[in-house]
Amino acid sequence: MVVAARAQNERVIHELEQFVRFPSVSATATHAAGIRNCAAWLANHLRSIGLDHAAVLPTAGHPVVFADWRHAPGRPILLIYGHYDVQPAEPLDAWRSPPFTPTVRGEGLYGRGASDDKGQLFVHVKAIESLLKSRGRLPVNVVCLFEGEEEIGSPNLGAFLRKHRHLLAADFVVISDTQIPAANRPAITDSLRGALGVELEVQGPRRDLHSGVLGGAVGNPLQALAQILAGLQGARGRIAIPGFYQRVRPCDDQERAYMRRVGPSDAQILRDAGAMPSSGEPGYSLYERSTIRPALAVTGVTGGYQGPGVKAVIPAKASAKLDIRLVPDQQPEEIADLLRAHLAQVRPAGFRVGMHVLLSTRPVTMRRDHPAVGAAMRAYGSTFGVAPVFVRSGGSIPVVGLIQDILGLPVVMMGFGLPDDHIHGPNERLHLPTFFRGIETSKRFLDEAARLEGLGESCRPRHRPVLQQALE
Amino acid sequence: MVVAARAQNERVIHELEQFVRFPSVSATATHAAGIRNCAAWLANHLRSIGLDHAAVLPTAGHPVVFADWRHAPGRPILLIYGHYDVQPAEPLDAWRSPPFTPTVRGEGLYGRGASDDKGQLFVHVKAIESLLKSRGRLPVNVVCLFEGEEEIGSPNLGAFLRKHRHLLAADFVVISDTQIPAANRPAITDSLRGALGVELEVQGPRRDLHSGVLGGAVGNPLQALAQILAGLQGARGRIAIPGFYQRVRPCDDQERAYMRRVGPSDAQILRDAGAMPSSGEPGYSLYERSTIRPALAVTGVTGGYQGPGVKAVIPAKASAKLDIRLVPDQQPEEIADLLRAHLAQVRPAGFRVGMHVLLSTRPVTMRRDHPAVGAAMRAYGSTFGVAPVFVRSGGSIPVVGLIQDILGLPVVMMGFGLPDDHIHGPNERLHLPTFFRGIETSKRFLDEAARLEGLGESCRPRHRPVLQQALE
Repeated sequence: MVVAARAQNERVIHELEQFVRFPSVSATATHAAGIRNCAAWLANHLRSIGLDHAAVLPTAGHPVVFADWRHAPGRPILLIYGHYDVQPAEPLDAWRSPPFTPTVRGEGLYGRGASDDKGQLFVHVKAIESLLKSRGRLPVNVVCLFEGEEEIGSPNLGAFLRKHRHLLAADFVVISDTQIPAANRPAITDSLRGALGVELEVQGPRRDLHSGVLGGAVGNPLQALAQILAGLQGARGRIAIPGFYQRVRPCDDQERAYMRRVGPSDAQILRDAGAMPSSGEPGYSLYERSTIRPALAVTGVTGGYQGPGVKAVIPAKASAKLDIRLVPDQQPEEIADLLRAHLAQVRPAGFRVGMHVLLSTRPVTMRRDHPAVGAAMRAYGSTFGVAPVFVRSGGSIPVVGLIQDILGLPVVMMGFGLPDDHIHGPNERLHLPTFFRGIETSKRFLDEAARLEGLGESCRPRHRPVLQQALE
Repeated sequence: MVVAARAQNERVIHELEQFVRFPSVSATATHAAGIRNCAAWLANHLRSIGLDHAAVLPTAGHPVVFADWRHAPGRPILLIYGHYDVQPAEPLDAWRSPPFTPTVRGEGLYGRGASDDKGQLFVHVKAIESLLKSRGRLPVNVVCLFEGEEEIGSPNLGAFLRKHRHLLAADFVVISDTQIPAANRPAITDSLRGALGVELEVQGPRRDLHSGVLGGAVGNPLQALAQILAGLQGARGRIAIPGFYQRVRPCDDQERAYMRRVGPSDAQILRDAGAMPSSGEPGYSLYERSTIRPALAVTGVTGGYQGPGVKAVIPAKASAKLDIRLVPDQQPEEIADLLRAHLAQVRPAGFRVGMHVLLSTRPVTMRRDHPAVGAAMRAYGSTFGVAPVFVRSGGSIPVVGLIQDILGLPVVMMGFGLPDDHIHGPNERLHLPTFFRGIETSKRFLDEAARLEGLGESCRPRHRPVLQQALE
């Protein structure tokens, strides 16, 4: 039996490697084939394990992979969300093995997207497969919604949810796209920060100029940009955009005490990150600074000569990308307006400063008292041997707010990532023991969900024609 | 005769196009073949027009192209310096025609290096060719020294000059690698700023991190770099490195009055550059700010994600290139030390800040009273119909200081570039009417130089064996 289980696990790892091998980077047009082939592979895989209606459904951007199984009348319908797109893999030279050549080293499967989110998405796919194989059926009805644009802020998911509202009707949603504090400490994420992604462009001379001949005489967009960026934060890391903190909802003492008890210590965060603390807001732990407080990060700067050696140039323009994370009740649109007004104020004379919103997601919180959360807690408890805690994430997952706002469904975020999975960085990995424990947890969650009362009404045959229509 | 002259000019333009076609970018290793082939072509061309000993001489970096003609005993020896290497051509998409596909449009020949310095170097080559063709001999002895590393700060030229001191022995040097104020306003450049090129690298976390999950909790090298860069200059553009201005020699009122009379106006400089003024030092014209005052330009910043769309990343490191221009009596080594000390002072806690010197050249001034300068003035006057003025350049040409220090020779800088040649930027061009007038000026200069008294002693046969030795 042990040998059979090992062979079984090796097959699952092999399949996951196939999945990770696709360079399904959503941000760059050069990876269009990677996205397309990954979506097709995933739909095919869902079909092969016995799900119905597996299909690649178009959006205005990258497609959604859909499948369902609705043969448990009277039982709840569970919508499983995940995303098959991944972050860009750059800088490539920092990877020990190539990002799209998934490689097992020790207990980890290394590759871009191994943890975020292909591995965590696969947890549920493999749980479903296992149950269908062993029992011939599932304890609940399931709908799979696997997105291809999560890493670029899900720009087309809202329209997709609105269009396919009936197709996606369910009782609650499970998402595994978060981290737990440690391999032996399961957790349900119940708050996510919002995000505002913008690009700033500072335009100076009409063309690149000679920095020797004209240095000192003409304005330099790179220096103007540096001044603007440096001025976005005060000495203690407080964000200097006027009005920025106005709508920040203070966190009550009880909740902060809970966070201190269950959340990571400053030392733990810095150890996992391999970093030094920011000069961030005094009076808040690092866990608090990155969850219940907003933040501003410069994520990229481009300007002038970036090759080896020297080039004597004053560039015509320079640009920067900002990632601003928001907490309740900040609204990204309002923050964008405040930033635009701030830039107009601080713009150095003679330069044009453009701002372009790349991404906009509101902050969300999730209920802790929903019956589906209880099912998730019992499932975690049975497989990890310890009750999960509630944690807050500093990240943003646009779909959560969209699902709340458009479908009106409660969301349970069951994480199977670890803090040292290096997501978004080089050498991203999936911790395989946690992955396999995740599959067992998902199976148990489906069983627990089946026992929930009063949640089964929405599973009606009326979905059938809607589905046919959507898939035609 | 007119038809013959036109055909002659077309042949010369065709040859110059061949020269410009080589992508002889010295900064990037990817262009090694461009450098090598360009040097070989140039040596071959010098041989073909009748110069002796044409050869590609090795250095520790890119080679020097050498040739001479010493058949005028008792006459002065003129060393002609130029450089066949060029600036990188990026950004490529800003070029109307490809940088290494030389293209004639209107009165301009467009291509990287067309003006800086292939076209200006070619002025003298074509003058020599013309004289040798029409008279069978030259009025003076000439030595050609055409370098391949000017655009990267001539790192190996000093060693080359020291090694080949005897081979290069001459009475004076002419360099055409500068601009004149306008096509009808010839000028001799008599001062150049020094240059210190450095790269700063700010190192933060051990690896790239997720800017959502950790934004607000951990330090960001891009933000630290922006603070450092913004802090290098005060509000009025004054450079904030302690001690930076200590050795700046004030310019006397008489010279400033001369500069006001003959130099470009602020409006002229901004019109040529297509730029707005810097927030530079009050009390100085733009011409003064870019010649008799030092300057600091950020020439490139690299860090984080630079592709399209968003990437939620706090990069592990960020870097910037600085181009600092110096005036007498600032010394680049001392300024590098001051900058290093300043960085140690302002370094944000927890970050490592590295500094790497890429280029170092001292400021130079040239004599206005040397007889060779008089010869140049007469030559300009006869071909341009107007006496040249003395101008200062904000740029740096390392060879001038090296020639002064190592060979002990006076240098005359006769420019044939124009302020709107777009050197170092996209769409660099050579103004062809000025180029052809330059050839006539160079021929006249050689004739004028032949009449200089008391400068011919150094042309002795002892150079012969030295030359043979160097070329073996």
